[in-house]
Amino acid sequence: MSYHSQSYAPSAPPAPDPNGSGYPYPPAPTNYYGHTSYGSHGQSDFPPGTHPEVIRSFQMVDRDRSGFIDESELQLALSSGYQRFSLGTIRLLMFLFKNPRDSLRIRPKEFAALWSCLGQWRAIFERFDRDRSGKIDSMELRDALYSLGYAIPPSVLQVLISRYDDGSGRRVELNFDSFVECGMIVKGLTEKFKEKDPRYTGSATLTYDTFMSMIIPFLVA
Amino acid sequence: MSYHSQSYAPSAPPAPDPNGSGYPYPPAPTNYYGHTSYGSHGQSDFPPGTHPEVIRSFQMVDRDRSGFIDESELQLALSSGYQRFSLGTIRLLMFLFKNPRDSLRIRPKEFAALWSCLGQWRAIFERFDRDRSGKIDSMELRDALYSLGYAIPPSVLQVLISRYDDGSGRRVELNFDSFVECGMIVKGLTEKFKEKDPRYTGSATLTYDTFMSMIIPFLVA
Repeated sequence: MSYHSQSYAPSAPPAPDPNGSGYPYPPAPTNYYGHTSYGSHGQSDFPPGTHPEVIRSFQMVDRDRSGFIDESELQLALSSGYQRFSLGTIRLLMFLFKNPRDSLRIRPKEFAALWSCLGQWRAIFERFDRDRSGKIDSMELRDALYSLGYAIPPSVLQVLISRYDDGSGRRVELNFDSFVECGMIVKGLTEKFKEKDPRYTGSATLTYDTFMSMIIPFLVA
Repeated sequence: MSYHSQSYAPSAPPAPDPNGSGYPYPPAPTNYYGHTSYGSHGQSDFPPGTHPEVIRSFQMVDRDRSGFIDESELQLALSSGYQRFSLGTIRLLMFLFKNPRDSLRIRPKEFAALWSCLGQWRAIFERFDRDRSGKIDSMELRDALYSLGYAIPPSVLQVLISRYDDGSGRRVELNFDSFVECGMIVKGLTEKFKEKDPRYTGSATLTYDTFMSMIIPFLVA
């Protein structure tokens, strides 16, 4: 299955091929060049076996080798493997993947996890973008989220997709950036809910403070 | 107490004086000119006693007299009495004040309610903006929200205000637009929570579907 990245924004670099041998997701048993990332990159904080492209993308923006990258650097780093995500999506990704104790910055380990997750989502997106238009509609979004393990009510789906309605009356379609944004909102909120429903009963009791603390980070992301 | 609206964006029109006799909030017992809005504006849907400025602002943008205004029209209509709010704030206001059964549009009655609410919030904002800088800091935001009836946990306040941190290391300050956005997020989420906690116990039991349906509209607003 080849993917025509040209259907995305013209500035986007070629997407990694999810089925290619060099693709970092699922985790390769050893790394691309047959030696550990540690060995070739000094005191790297990347997990063993991290694909060199992931390390290169991170180091390209972390010029002072501080071991952290900020929002705009993350935007640039991901653009080498995926595309230039909107700042809204980048903020959401950073919020969901950064260490909760850190301020707004990403470490190598978290960057590798994010890169892998995006690889999986790209594969799902491509599977449901059957006509290779670079866009999926609301029913395809529902199926894509379902295949990621999220069964969301139709009313929620409708509200979610209304974000991308330009008011022209045309059928709403999502590009990969918007798909990632939608999916990360659903993933993030679902995980927060599950924390409060550890036995998966389908309902949770929340105090007002907990409720507010759970949600507001999503609003400011 | 006079308010120097010059400290806001230069394009902002003069703010209504909350203590002036012509100010539409709190509701005047009769309207400004001593006759009902209905009489002077034909088949108006404005409540009796609506201030003519509110009606004028609405009708200025509702050129076809359809009785509805959309997002960008709301932005323009409010700019005559307050300032030009960001589209993010406008979407949040529309979501919170429109009839839930309507799509993204505002009717006269809702517009009048929104205008009144903003008048109250402007008065609160001015009270806490003690140096008349046109900005309030996080502690003033906390006190302002408290005076509106919302006691939010410090951790939530911190996350909320981080939205407006430009990363420069300077103390975060909010202009009226950001204050309204913050306040409306708190107001909206609190009201949603209260619906599920009608006896005000401070905690609520939510199903996953309810939880998602409650929150996602705020994320897409």
